[in-house]
Amino acid sequence: MTSTLPAATASASNAAAPDSPHHDLATTTADGMSSAPASVPLPLPQATVADGFWAPRIEVVRTRTIPFQRAQLERVGHLRALAGTPRPEDGVPHVFWDSDVAKWIEAASYSLATHPDPVLEADVEEVVALLAAAQQPDGYLNTHFTNVAPEQRFTDLRDAHELYCAGHLIEAGVAHHRATGKTTLLDVVVRLADHIGAVFGRGPGQLRGYDGHEEVELALVKLAAATGDRRHLELASYFVEERGQEPFFFDLEADRRGTTGWFGDHFAGENHPGRTRQYWQAHAPVREQHEAVGHSVRAMYLYSAMADLARDTDDASLLEACRRLWDHLLSARTYVTGGIGSTVINEGFTRDHDLPTETAYAETCAGIGLMMWAQRMLGIDRHRRYGDAMELALHNAVLAGLSADGEHFFYDNVLASRGGIERHEWFHVACCPPNIARLLTSLTSYAYAQGQDELVIHLALGGTARFETSGGWAGVRITTDAPWGGRTAVRIEEAGTAPFTLSLRIPGWTAGARLSLNGEPLDDGLVGADGYLSVTRTWQVDDELAVELDVRVRRLWADPRVTTEAGHVAVTRGPFVYAAEEADNPAPLVDLRLGRRSEPDLVEVPGLPGVISLQLRGERVVREGSGLYSDQPPHRIPADLTLVPYYAWANRGAGEMRVWLGDAER
Amino acid sequence: MTSTLPAATASASNAAAPDSPHHDLATTTADGMSSAPASVPLPLPQATVADGFWAPRIEVVRTRTIPFQRAQLERVGHLRALAGTPRPEDGVPHVFWDSDVAKWIEAASYSLATHPDPVLEADVEEVVALLAAAQQPDGYLNTHFTNVAPEQRFTDLRDAHELYCAGHLIEAGVAHHRATGKTTLLDVVVRLADHIGAVFGRGPGQLRGYDGHEEVELALVKLAAATGDRRHLELASYFVEERGQEPFFFDLEADRRGTTGWFGDHFAGENHPGRTRQYWQAHAPVREQHEAVGHSVRAMYLYSAMADLARDTDDASLLEACRRLWDHLLSARTYVTGGIGSTVINEGFTRDHDLPTETAYAETCAGIGLMMWAQRMLGIDRHRRYGDAMELALHNAVLAGLSADGEHFFYDNVLASRGGIERHEWFHVACCPPNIARLLTSLTSYAYAQGQDELVIHLALGGTARFETSGGWAGVRITTDAPWGGRTAVRIEEAGTAPFTLSLRIPGWTAGARLSLNGEPLDDGLVGADGYLSVTRTWQVDDELAVELDVRVRRLWADPRVTTEAGHVAVTRGPFVYAAEEADNPAPLVDLRLGRRSEPDLVEVPGLPGVISLQLRGERVVREGSGLYSDQPPHRIPADLTLVPYYAWANRGAGEMRVWLGDAER
Repeated sequence: MTSTLPAATASASNAAAPDSPHHDLATTTADGMSSAPASVPLPLPQATVADGFWAPRIEVVRTRTIPFQRAQLERVGHLRALAGTPRPEDGVPHVFWDSDVAKWIEAASYSLATHPDPVLEADVEEVVALLAAAQQPDGYLNTHFTNVAPEQRFTDLRDAHELYCAGHLIEAGVAHHRATGKTTLLDVVVRLADHIGAVFGRGPGQLRGYDGHEEVELALVKLAAATGDRRHLELASYFVEERGQEPFFFDLEADRRGTTGWFGDHFAGENHPGRTRQYWQAHAPVREQHEAVGHSVRAMYLYSAMADLARDTDDASLLEACRRLWDHLLSARTYVTGGIGSTVINEGFTRDHDLPTETAYAETCAGIGLMMWAQRMLGIDRHRRYGDAMELALHNAVLAGLSADGEHFFYDNVLASRGGIERHEWFHVACCPPNIARLLTSLTSYAYAQGQDELVIHLALGGTARFETSGGWAGVRITTDAPWGGRTAVRIEEAGTAPFTLSLRIPGWTAGARLSLNGEPLDDGLVGADGYLSVTRTWQVDDELAVELDVRVRRLWADPRVTTEAGHVAVTRGPFVYAAEEADNPAPLVDLRLGRRSEPDLVEVPGLPGVISLQLRGERVVREGSGLYSDQPPHRIPADLTLVPYYAWANRGAGEMRVWLGDAER
Repeated sequence: MTSTLPAATASASNAAAPDSPHHDLATTTADGMSSAPASVPLPLPQATVADGFWAPRIEVVRTRTIPFQRAQLERVGHLRALAGTPRPEDGVPHVFWDSDVAKWIEAASYSLATHPDPVLEADVEEVVALLAAAQQPDGYLNTHFTNVAPEQRFTDLRDAHELYCAGHLIEAGVAHHRATGKTTLLDVVVRLADHIGAVFGRGPGQLRGYDGHEEVELALVKLAAATGDRRHLELASYFVEERGQEPFFFDLEADRRGTTGWFGDHFAGENHPGRTRQYWQAHAPVREQHEAVGHSVRAMYLYSAMADLARDTDDASLLEACRRLWDHLLSARTYVTGGIGSTVINEGFTRDHDLPTETAYAETCAGIGLMMWAQRMLGIDRHRRYGDAMELALHNAVLAGLSADGEHFFYDNVLASRGGIERHEWFHVACCPPNIARLLTSLTSYAYAQGQDELVIHLALGGTARFETSGGWAGVRITTDAPWGGRTAVRIEEAGTAPFTLSLRIPGWTAGARLSLNGEPLDDGLVGADGYLSVTRTWQVDDELAVELDVRVRRLWADPRVTTEAGHVAVTRGPFVYAAEEADNPAPLVDLRLGRRSEPDLVEVPGLPGVISLQLRGERVVREGSGLYSDQPPHRIPADLTLVPYYAWANRGAGEMRVWLGDAER
């Protein structure tokens, strides 16, 4: 398809196949390596964000969250701890404090990549210098073990997060190098990776192990891409393949050590879900894993590395394992918000269809991990299912983790609160705040990908994107009223000399899509089976590809095996899941009932500028009788319901909140 | 009111005040010591049980449960452990194994009180001899501490259950003496009580402490009644009054000991609900306690002792504390089954209106504890609220703990199961099986009480009851079709020479009651504000007082603050709460909906002889669409529902079960 367009097509198309519910994000087919065109995330300097929704948020992260988190690292003693034994008056940081520091460097570097800032850069450099000074002559770098327990180096891979920290340092080193061109941290992490490669492996004298918390694997893939050194990729592959092999490494190291692990007292016993091999995704070799299990952040980081390796080693069976795990996760263990992890007990998965709301874990980091995995799957197995899930998690499970002011965070994200739940400034284990900062400062790398003569738009952010084609550089300006509206226009600002393809995800949630090119309707046959509109032609400056999605309120019902949501309905509009909050609706919210037909009024929420609420006609159950149990049946009276996007909850006090509302017709 | 009866009264009365829902078991008024006539439980030899429901059950306990439990004590090594260090091949019993043995002796003694059985008596005597031999010269008796850790005697009152065991031994000693007339065990426990009285108290050199698990308090009250020795009562009073005083005894003993407690590793940290002062009801002096908190069995045993002491010391403020705690428990923390305790985490209470069903704890022992407390409150503050709660717990929360075969037990009692839950033969901590055995073998002491020239019938069991009046012995024969039907007749078999009163509880659940004397209708004004029908006259042999209750299916709705039951309805009939089971209704039960009007057919359940099920017209929700979340609304189709009494569940496989069903009209 180049410049010859059909003369006339239906202007309102069914491109989004409304018969297939948008949350059916799981179904895939097994067909070896994908035939989808491959793509990689667009480098950060090639894109800008200029829209009404994300740009202000990223600005908040840049101007408030990043400096605020730097101050937090100072406050809790992390920076002092890099240079020596933590002082008792700082409190003892958790054993993996290096990773908090590394993620802050990574977030700051992403910010610097698009917003040069000498003060921030100097701040970063100061921390980098602390890390460089802490590196040991053999390349080892972990300031807990160097400063507190040098004799315990690499003796407790299961619990001590040593390679997890290394992974985050490596990610930070790559990000820092890409943003600033400097090698001050990259050199450090290359030496660290080389040291790890010398210590770990299947050779004589090497430690045949892997980390309890995956992270180093995906970091080493990034390092290989940055350095061109294939040994880092092979080390990543070793760690992924070794996981789940017999004999069980964590038992072997425990026998050598002669003590229980680092968190020996943290769990209640050997049968605790935080003590099973599933917890570490080490119950089977990765190609034999069939279900998403265990600690959910660990799972996402592992699966992301598996997808990376499937891509870089062209490994069909690894891709197949990823697809199988994706299918399982999305069909049985994902909250309607895109959050994952059903319980605090193992910070992870429980059993199929167990998705309790008041006790949901849905850790912010796990939502980010799902986005990371989806981003990688989109590069090798492009399909709307991954893009829709990434969009869902971003707008709901992840964005809820950050307050409007950029300085308060949710670690876990419940889907219902009886009140009393608020975001916090920091956490003893502070993985989530810097994780959301690094996500938002690198958001364009999730939104855009470049392939062979192709720009793929997974998420319509307003702004610009440039990419290289065989005919030279090309560039587009995207204008959109997303996420509240459905109109997105992609205008060519720089065309190059050769044909190229613009591909744009048509989300599963739309009730239809009007497609047009330079104002002329496009046939909806241009939306492929993968859910992407793809137009290939020799583009001219000012050509405009436009999509108008049908953004309507949708009601969702859960699989009846999700027993906690039986008789309940969730409301979505566009990418947003909505929730009732006590700030707008008198408690108890459990007494609200939502009918199946009413259409909403859209109203800006008082106290939440720019946030669109839904006002719907519903009912309220009114009890009769008294006492704990009464034989007088309750009745219902009409009631107006105001729903706000889930991400915006808990910015106006700590009242009740509920995503799932009583279905008036059950 | 003697022999002069009103000439004519309405034959169908509203004696049960249907406007006040039967589950409103909480409301009391504060008026110092009660003006209700006092009464005490009828001694076991003065009653027999001969009906279609309880008699066979008690017979199962006598002929199967008691011998079976004796064999279990043998199997798990408890009896060998009385005589020496437990052998590793027996497994190490929990530290309070003496209490399991004691409760078995108590249950066997209650059985012997009404069913002499030389073989069982010899069996008991053999165990008593082991205990007597284990008693130390100073009177101390605890075979764990004597055989395993003699140097730790009375060093860990908080966790080691030392006085708890003593309490159960004392109860056993009193029961054994009353049943057999022997003093072989009574002498032992008197020496034990004297030893405890020497060790504990506020005098010089005494240990000013109390046990982490209440039990010795109520046992000492029983001992005082059996021996007439008021020192035992004073010791009970000391233990009750000392609880919750400052400085906090469990901290003091921990400092002295220099180690964490016996269960130091059992709980996850100092903030664990099993580590708070509330857990032990030691957060405040008992008169300043306002809410039922902590471990629910411990709470019930404490409150029972408080009621005992209020009676025996005529203490109005202690009675007032009991009433306040009762009000709180019944108005905010009791399951619809009469079960108490919302979580396994502390085996106890959480917060008001937190009554989750799938994770309900509702320990069988706690239900028994509620009955024990209610029995005592009825003696000093007679009111239907206590009798109704006792009846509710007995027929549901407690009876569910025992299988139809008498050899399988529930420790905790969920109100909903997704399948996989079954009764067990025994438990490592085996408090519940012998507890239910001692309850059922002493059931008539809960059903009947004697006052001054009065017989009080709290529960209508079929059988006989004799009691002493100022005109000599009197006796009645009770015939009843309870618990399935509502007709109870009390016929005089022995009248004595003086007037006396027959009092009979009219339960709150009835929709009305026809009262009659010798076939002549009685005025419903004879039912007092306390909910008891009381008739005083000079009775003649063959006089018959009869009550016909209106037994209908009732639907109950929970206070909306019980969020887990919003939109749900529970079904009761007479004293029984009903449940849907997968054996009768296709899973998933969460899809069932019950309308508000349909009347049931009563049908004997296949596989459960004698059990009456309810067959009701309802609906089933059928989902449309596919995937974890679908935008296709579910619809409903007609469906027949079969409900069985809750106590009878899990006798036909381990399928799904639900007490609360979806309300078709929400």
